Amino acid sequence: MSEFSPTPKDKFTFGLWTVGNPGRDPFGKPTRGVMSPAEIVDLLGEVGGVHGVNFHDNDLVPIDASEAEAGRIVGEFEAALKRTKLKVAMATTDLFGEPVFRDGAFTSNDAEVRAYAVQKAMRGMDLGARFGASVYVFWGGREGCESDAAKDPVEAEARFRRALDFLCEYSIERGYGYKFALEAKPNEPRGHMFFPTTGHYLAFIPTLKHPGMVGVNPEVAHEHMAGLNFTHAVASALAADKLFHIDLNDQEFGRYDQDFRFGSANLKHAFFLVKLLEDHKYAGFKHFDAHAYRTADRADVIEFARGCMRTYLILRKKAAQWNADAEVKALLRQCHRPGKDVDALTEKFSRSKAETLLGMGFDRAKLAGRPLPYERLDQRTLEILMGV
Amino acid sequence: MSEFSPTPKDKFTFGLWTVGNPGRDPFGKPTRGVMSPAEIVDLLGEVGGVHGVNFHDNDLVPIDASEAEAGRIVGEFEAALKRTKLKVAMATTDLFGEPVFRDGAFTSNDAEVRAYAVQKAMRGMDLGARFGASVYVFWGGREGCESDAAKDPVEAEARFRRALDFLCEYSIERGYGYKFALEAKPNEPRGHMFFPTTGHYLAFIPTLKHPGMVGVNPEVAHEHMAGLNFTHAVASALAADKLFHIDLNDQEFGRYDQDFRFGSANLKHAFFLVKLLEDHKYAGFKHFDAHAYRTADRADVIEFARGCMRTYLILRKKAAQWNADAEVKALLRQCHRPGKDVDALTEKFSRSKAETLLGMGFDRAKLAGRPLPYERLDQRTLEILMGV
Amino acid sequence: MSEFSPTPKDKFTFGLWTVGNPGRDPFGKPTRGVMSPAEIVDLLGEVGGVHGVNFHDNDLVPIDASEAEAGRIVGEFEAALKRTKLKVAMATTDLFGEPVFRDGAFTSNDAEVRAYAVQKAMRGMDLGARFGASVYVFWGGREGCESDAAKDPVEAEARFRRALDFLCEYSIERGYGYKFALEAKPNEPRGHMFFPTTGHYLAFIPTLKHPGMVGVNPEVAHEHMAGLNFTHAVASALAADKLFHIDLNDQEFGRYDQDFRFGSANLKHAFFLVKLLEDHKYAGFKHFDAHAYRTADRADVIEFARGCMRTYLILRKKAAQWNADAEVKALLRQCHRPGKDVDALTEKFSRSKAETLLGMGFDRAKLAGRPLPYERLDQRTLEILMGV
Amino acid sequence: MSEFSPTPKDKFTFGLWTVGNPGRDPFGKPTRGVMSPAEIVDLLGEVGGVHGVNFHDNDLVPIDASEAEAGRIVGEFEAALKRTKLKVAMATTDLFGEPVFRDGAFTSNDAEVRAYAVQKAMRGMDLGARFGASVYVFWGGREGCESDAAKDPVEAEARFRRALDFLCEYSIERGYGYKFALEAKPNEPRGHMFFPTTGHYLAFIPTLKHPGMVGVNPEVAHEHMAGLNFTHAVASALAADKLFHIDLNDQEFGRYDQDFRFGSANLKHAFFLVKLLEDHKYAGFKHFDAHAYRTADRADVIEFARGCMRTYLILRKKAAQWNADAEVKALLRQCHRPGKDVDALTEKFSRSKAETLLGMGFDRAKLAGRPLPYERLDQRTLEILMGV
Repeated sequence: MSEFSPTPKDKFTFGLWTVGNPGRDPFGKPTRGVMSPAEIVDLLGEVGGVHGVNFHDNDLVPIDASEAEAGRIVGEFEAALKRTKLKVAMATTDLFGEPVFRDGAFTSNDAEVRAYAVQKAMRGMDLGARFGASVYVFWGGREGCESDAAKDPVEAEARFRRALDFLCEYSIERGYGYKFALEAKPNEPRGHMFFPTTGHYLAFIPTLKHPGMVGVNPEVAHEHMAGLNFTHAVASALAADKLFHIDLNDQEFGRYDQDFRFGSANLKHAFFLVKLLEDHKYAGFKHFDAHAYRTADRADVIEFARGCMRTYLILRKKAAQWNADAEVKALLRQCHRPGKDVDALTEKFSRSKAETLLGMGFDRAKLAGRPLPYERLDQRTLEILMGV
Repeated sequence: MSEFSPTPKDKFTFGLWTVGNPGRDPFGKPTRGVMSPAEIVDLLGEVGGVHGVNFHDNDLVPIDASEAEAGRIVGEFEAALKRTKLKVAMATTDLFGEPVFRDGAFTSNDAEVRAYAVQKAMRGMDLGARFGASVYVFWGGREGCESDAAKDPVEAEARFRRALDFLCEYSIERGYGYKFALEAKPNEPRGHMFFPTTGHYLAFIPTLKHPGMVGVNPEVAHEHMAGLNFTHAVASALAADKLFHIDLNDQEFGRYDQDFRFGSANLKHAFFLVKLLEDHKYAGFKHFDAHAYRTADRADVIEFARGCMRTYLILRKKAAQWNADAEVKALLRQCHRPGKDVDALTEKFSRSKAETLLGMGFDRAKLAGRPLPYERLDQRTLEILMGV
Repeated sequence: MSEFSPTPKDKFTFGLWTVGNPGRDPFGKPTRGVMSPAEIVDLLGEVGGVHGVNFHDNDLVPIDASEAEAGRIVGEFEAALKRTKLKVAMATTDLFGEPVFRDGAFTSNDAEVRAYAVQKAMRGMDLGARFGASVYVFWGGREGCESDAAKDPVEAEARFRRALDFLCEYSIERGYGYKFALEAKPNEPRGHMFFPTTGHYLAFIPTLKHPGMVGVNPEVAHEHMAGLNFTHAVASALAADKLFHIDLNDQEFGRYDQDFRFGSANLKHAFFLVKLLEDHKYAGFKHFDAHAYRTADRADVIEFARGCMRTYLILRKKAAQWNADAEVKALLRQCHRPGKDVDALTEKFSRSKAETLLGMGFDRAKLAGRPLPYERLDQRTLEILMGV
Repeated sequence: MSEFSPTPKDKFTFGLWTVGNPGRDPFGKPTRGVMSPAEIVDLLGEVGGVHGVNFHDNDLVPIDASEAEAGRIVGEFEAALKRTKLKVAMATTDLFGEPVFRDGAFTSNDAEVRAYAVQKAMRGMDLGARFGASVYVFWGGREGCESDAAKDPVEAEARFRRALDFLCEYSIERGYGYKFALEAKPNEPRGHMFFPTTGHYLAFIPTLKHPGMVGVNPEVAHEHMAGLNFTHAVASALAADKLFHIDLNDQEFGRYDQDFRFGSANLKHAFFLVKLLEDHKYAGFKHFDAHAYRTADRADVIEFARGCMRTYLILRKKAAQWNADAEVKALLRQCHRPGKDVDALTEKFSRSKAETLLGMGFDRAKLAGRPLPYERLDQRTLEILMGV
């Protein structure tokens, strides 16, 4: 079994809100007790092999905590980290839970709310830095609208940019060294959200003052809500050198935010994702932004956390198997037809290359007749996945 | 009736393949006869008030046409344009219909197919330029996969970039003056497509060699297939100054590519879209990339085309009404709370502004208690829409 | 304005949980204070024109209320009903909120939970009857699973049937005279729910011991979650004489359960729904199972409730207009081709009719050539809807 | 490898239109040549282990074939069946391809079209019977609308019923012994289709004159288009003893009709489906209503067909493994808590049982505290699926 047992080197992390989720949903009361941050860290210690833990500012310190309370909580949390040898990997700000953010934080129509949101993020960054978090995530949970009568989306984007620019400079000025990671979501809890997919954030980042320190934090469930191929979203982030963090979980397409155990909705998509991350040697944190079914008790929450990591490691092994598989290799050789000479023509434009290309004759029927055994390739992939 | 009758100044355009669509679908034979390009132009003339017409290379000249045939078709097309005073606004390449492109054009795994695709696009650009098209659209109809075993999506993006860079230079070298407009789609006809949303193309453009000449061509139906808010997609394009073209049509969320008459699936979304375009003074072409129901005959195709434009003009009037409506104005004043002083704090970072902001006290409960009568605002919007 | 002011004869109702919704969601705290049942009734009185109010057992009497508390609450509620002249129209049981139901109520894997659920429903029926509710709704909010490993769906359906059969007899035995109305939903809060659409309940009802007393309660938002045409769902219920109740609200296809104001997501679908209900003279309650945006305060909640009813009444008028419209009538005459003789052939089978039919010659091309001006008809519909 | 090699006893079937699909789609020309029915049968013979073949009337005999042509085709088809020992399992009518059906067949607004559709179905039944087909499928590919202005859905349902009643009697009168199987689909090729899910047909069947001879033909892809759990749809059909046929294929939720190789989109859903069919000893045909990727050539089409069957057989083995797995058994024992005494109370209603039940005390907290290790159970399921 040890083959699929994680170690801290795997850089698997869990948010306090993930294994600590009490099982409340829009239609039901909590099914599990609230645990303190220290208790959650201890639970993760019990899970075994976890690298680190992530938090929102108010996961760790309740928004109305007195200084004394805050001190006590933080102290206990530190002790638990020490005890379990877990690190804090990432921190973030809760800009969605409080009624003050009911119509947005950075994009609120109320200038004071916008300012308060920035202040809260600054303090959250202070808190994260104190624990050595190197990544700071921004999920604009309320940045959107139910009715497009409410906000000009062009103005909303400008407001979001202004906040991010300011916070980048704050990080620089304080020497925090954060990498910012922006997390997209198409809807829920707002009717429509302003940066619905990872692609939208990848488009937004180059418009910032400090694009180099800002990347993305794609989440499986969020792209699946829009029925999009998550592996492709991650590929775009990798291509742009912007994969600063990743939220692994799972869910069916076109549904409410399910945040299920990694791989539990669609093994094939999970397989190609793991393969992409491993093939491209992604070295960042792999955060399981999921929570256990509402039916789970503490023991089953532990199984949930272990399952997330085991599935990743099993798929990692299968990805290696796939890469090494003789039949897969032969099929890929058949399907990929490089052509140095012909590629060279379009590599760098020149008038003469253009003329050459325009003058070439292509035999459409011949090209269309070359075999592309993708059914066989996909079936072989499934069988590797099923261990046949 | 004249109030909602279009004129060429409205810059409404139709593709040859829209009103010329013969009504074939995956389960049924064509229900309408094939019209020649000239006949389609004449039909648009009969519709009345249309600005121009758009084409794919092979809409105009069949892929296997002899020179003589091509000459005749082009001549008749020119005569029809003259007769009807329609312009050619946009042109594009069919890189999806032929079997040779069954696994992609610019992103094909076969170097010769990639080269042929670039050549075909060059020739399509030549043809478009001949008719004075100022916008050249790229829709990568086959750039995707059914199984992620088939292609590395990172490599696919690189291939797409190389083709675009080359074609930009070709346009420059030939002095065509094209603006390129990239059109996203999440799936269909491929299982998964590589640039699934307008956001993804907005992210891709800055990575090109000539980003200034490349923008987007968002299409209502394509974003709706992913259940995304199209108005927001267009807002992002406007914010980035990249709205080079637009495809107006309609369809239900989460379905096959329906390409219905503009406004016919969701009037409210269409209203906010028209309002955004008009408020931001979008001056480009408004292309109705739709087709009539398969039940329609020629007369009903004409009604379809008229309906697209009438609905736009009705909504344009309603947008003006909305902007002028006293109740709407009063509600917006209540919901939007600017704050010059507080906004100034985050406008441009300085250590002292950061300190000031960190030191401020915000009364969360007070801010959360300010009225945001969005239900009233949205209801008023609906009633303006319904003419009450 | 009085034209669109509701009266109790319109039979519009609201659940306590609708206008009383405090604005909590999975990501945020409540934004509105909790109101007592009596306060909610008073609010509905202030809204004006409302026929009645509906409740879950625990909306009215908290699950752990002492007898004294229960007595006080009920007394205050009764007084408020008297004051406002509102009726109780429908009652239902909360079988989803308590942790005990975390894996289902009637379909739980635990026999004691199943029994407790039935007991709770019996008591809820007692409470509803006390207030004269004539309809009793069953929404199986937890009847489902996240993993199909958990439950045999065939067994689950049998369990659900057993509970319903028992409760039908209980209603009969007590002389409550209830009509039961079953409410479907595809998912949320469970990963998958057992009776996902109205069609599934229409299939289930004939398998009950007392099918005559059981009908359906279709909800706009629930069918829209599966991207289904709600008007068609209601038509099936009407065709089966099973439309015992209806939940009016709105939401985008393929999203989390949004429960928006009636008509606010898609006016066209709302129009055809109202037209169907009015054309078929649906005489039951029209329940607005919606809640105000989380941004709304008390005044905006009132506007929300008024908006639901106004939109219905506006659409009712437009439906009458549509039915009376000369152009619509002419178009329909063109599209509908009755044929008494030919219909008679298939009305009732006989060998000779079969032979006659087999011997007939049909001119496919001629039939296919008859005009069906649906584009024109749909455009005219939109223009009536927009008041043009 | 023989372990996963099918035999005719497995009752796997393919339609002529599945392996014979030429790869045309809405955006592209065919990529494969058209094969004659006999050639398709030979291909299936080459695949190996196939039980039978299914056809639409016009798959076998083109709609405009002369008698001589028809005779020749049928003769060659018969010879191929003999050669390959394949049976005809199911037949059906093409009521969607011809322009005459552009607005429906049985539900058309044109009485003559309706009559022609019935006639065509009768002749299709004659043809199917000639080849010994025991199941006759009805897929109402055009029974729907784009605009609800076009048809009254209540009337449409009545028209569909009339046609089915007539055709049932025709089958009886001719002694064909058919079992009719109705196949639902939510949309595509129509904007909205009248019987969108299997549940809707299960509701419709009891309203027929001969409900006993009519069942359903659920299709994976069609339920997935609405984002519904297919296994639950099949369970409802099994519970109602109405699973007369099944269409196995696969596709992502909320997309166009993809008809992919069985299991290729979601292995977990496919696993639970196979387990359900095997646990409930479904003995009917298992039809792979899928087609190969448009990239496939003849050899890859063969791999596609083999892959469908292999995946089924691999999953069948895994289902047996799951049922026998000690850990799974132990977990299920923990999660399922039968209670004979308490179940007996609700089995059959009596006043005294009702009183007893009402008088019982249930400890909510205790019941809510019982462990339900579904995370562990689901993870174990995944690992069996992955062969770990």
